[in-house]
Amino acid sequence: MADRPIQSLGWKTPLQSARKRNMDILAQRGVSGIMDVLSPGVPPGSDTAHLAIFGYDPYNVYRGRGAFEALGVGVSLQKGDIAFRCNLATVDATGQIIDRRAGRIDSVNARTLAKALRNAKRTRHNDVEVIVEPATEHRIAIILRGDGLSSQIGDTDPHEAGMPVQKVKPLIKTSEAAKTADIVNDLSTVFRDILEKHPINQERKGRGDLPANAILFRGASELPKIEPLPRKYGVRIAAISGTALIKGVCRSLGIEIIEVKGATGTLETDVEAKAEATIEALHDHEVVYTHVKGTDNASHDGDVSQKVRMIERIDQMIGNIASKVDQDTVMSITTDHTTPVETKEHTGDPVPVTISGQGVRRDGVKNFDEISCAKGGLNKIRGIDLFPILMNSIGRTKKFGA
Amino acid sequence: MADRPIQSLGWKTPLQSARKRNMDILAQRGVSGIMDVLSPGVPPGSDTAHLAIFGYDPYNVYRGRGAFEALGVGVSLQKGDIAFRCNLATVDATGQIIDRRAGRIDSVNARTLAKALRNAKRTRHNDVEVIVEPATEHRIAIILRGDGLSSQIGDTDPHEAGMPVQKVKPLIKTSEAAKTADIVNDLSTVFRDILEKHPINQERKGRGDLPANAILFRGASELPKIEPLPRKYGVRIAAISGTALIKGVCRSLGIEIIEVKGATGTLETDVEAKAEATIEALHDHEVVYTHVKGTDNASHDGDVSQKVRMIERIDQMIGNIASKVDQDTVMSITTDHTTPVETKEHTGDPVPVTISGQGVRRDGVKNFDEISCAKGGLNKIRGIDLFPILMNSIGRTKKFGA
Repeated sequence: MADRPIQSLGWKTPLQSARKRNMDILAQRGVSGIMDVLSPGVPPGSDTAHLAIFGYDPYNVYRGRGAFEALGVGVSLQKGDIAFRCNLATVDATGQIIDRRAGRIDSVNARTLAKALRNAKRTRHNDVEVIVEPATEHRIAIILRGDGLSSQIGDTDPHEAGMPVQKVKPLIKTSEAAKTADIVNDLSTVFRDILEKHPINQERKGRGDLPANAILFRGASELPKIEPLPRKYGVRIAAISGTALIKGVCRSLGIEIIEVKGATGTLETDVEAKAEATIEALHDHEVVYTHVKGTDNASHDGDVSQKVRMIERIDQMIGNIASKVDQDTVMSITTDHTTPVETKEHTGDPVPVTISGQGVRRDGVKNFDEISCAKGGLNKIRGIDLFPILMNSIGRTKKFGA
Repeated sequence: MADRPIQSLGWKTPLQSARKRNMDILAQRGVSGIMDVLSPGVPPGSDTAHLAIFGYDPYNVYRGRGAFEALGVGVSLQKGDIAFRCNLATVDATGQIIDRRAGRIDSVNARTLAKALRNAKRTRHNDVEVIVEPATEHRIAIILRGDGLSSQIGDTDPHEAGMPVQKVKPLIKTSEAAKTADIVNDLSTVFRDILEKHPINQERKGRGDLPANAILFRGASELPKIEPLPRKYGVRIAAISGTALIKGVCRSLGIEIIEVKGATGTLETDVEAKAEATIEALHDHEVVYTHVKGTDNASHDGDVSQKVRMIERIDQMIGNIASKVDQDTVMSITTDHTTPVETKEHTGDPVPVTISGQGVRRDGVKNFDEISCAKGGLNKIRGIDLFPILMNSIGRTKKFGA
């Protein structure tokens, strides 16, 4: 949601331009500030940003994105599992990549192809189990499960078309890293064979579509080793999100995921349904986290008016929630990073944050936006400070000392 | 002194409601801010808060409360000493606790009983000296002095009535922890015997009062290993406080304690006497710390009007001091934690801080309170930053680099 001043908005930010009366009311009832989600000037990923916002230091606990993606699509990760974010891709006869997303193959066909990979006859290390779980479109989660594995290996994905699929190398000199790299290189070959011969790809070639004839592995990762959030503060906590990555981060922290029909992680997400689910979840959870992705999509597309419109839809959602919860309920609004429509990428600018509810001080800030909040009583905080501050306001932090 | 908005005060805090002209004048002459005493959202104890305010990181140096209590009642602790906060308590014939404070026995009788414990005939480890020092009412400091001891042991105090006195267990597997636990368990038994037979307890029973027939041990602790504050900055520094714990923390940092008659650590404390002692101490000390506990007592009692009245008395004390010291004197006001009258417990909300005097910038803040200070030129600082900032204003910090 956070942005920079935009000339076409008279040098206002989308937040400053949007009609967002409900956010402003919360700011007026509480205390505001700005927040360096990770560290000043550092652009956060959505995964590291969420770790920070829930009070975990990503510089200590982050072990790559793959594990969160796998959790997000419903795989139950175990200790020692190595998870990869994989793509179905198109390569030519020499192994050179033509399209990293196989012509954005549809989810139904991608799912059939992914399932076919489960029967791959591997040539070695058959003590290690390979779990293949299709996500949306070209995206697939692949998990290695077994003894003596390591996430310290590179990618087979060269991250650009025109390059050959890479042979994976261990990043450290251990037998575990060597073994894991060896398994991935074997899978890369045997998967290619299965996909090349699969009827779906024969059909696609017949129609002139790009065949999904290779798997690109990237982001080898493990689960972070952390104390689960509910145990840390003695609270039941639920999250509502349409985005697999965010659901995965939340699951890794022990947060219950509430699936909401119509929560799509896109501009078309059903904010009314999210509001209702939030109110419902508050009946049996002390903390509910509600995530809306749409403003980020608009930012990545560089679409100012879409972004303003999405902010106004989020404001309605907040208004709905605020009108139905107890007045004492502590509510906080923030954004997990700044994505200026002009850069179309995450940047390291601080984000606005506001907190209101019982016992929260009132600082006189009138609007929820990047400029007004910077003058608020929270001053500037770090992402990892937000959750302890919220838990303090509901009396769930422990005293240190006597 | 710090609090949250209170409905009966029209959503103002006690600091915002109180008449406190002298504090406001200091704010107007200087620079203000808010301070996370330990870390955002973390409720500080009075001991850890004071370590932080004097520039020591409690997360590194804090070793429990017992040592500070012992120093506070005048025991000179040595390196390796293990100090306990103990209670005179009442137990029944089966060892079950009836009252953890022995019916709040008076200080005179408690003192006689404590002294009787000094002659205990222990059954083992007689190489270790046992120091027994009565404090107020049921409180006693007990110190073990000798080679090969450890503070890594539990409590005999179950912290609630209706439970039996516990057998102490070592928290780590070392011979030192085992030996220390063994001594405490021995003392627990032999003390019980002495107390049970003591004439004072026979009299108490005769009158129908609860006998003080057991000692509860808790908070085994050592002195923090630190560089003393006067050496760190090359200053003579004195503290004035009516609270044993605070005097103990100050002594542990090498701060001289000035005993003031009438400084009681309660709502009735003599703030005039404290003001006079502060002015007097400034003749031969570069730094004087003056502590008033009363606002915290009012907060723990949930008494808004007492709290406002106490703030007004503190304001008079500050006015007295300000009128009698050199205009250039650097003065700083802060609170060691927030204790909202509504929660009656320490919380992790930030506290206001103001600094005025020669060379200190003026930020235009007009009032000393939680909301106004948050808009000040100090912005938000951490507790451990305050003392270096004060020492810088009087030219006592050392340059780092060339």
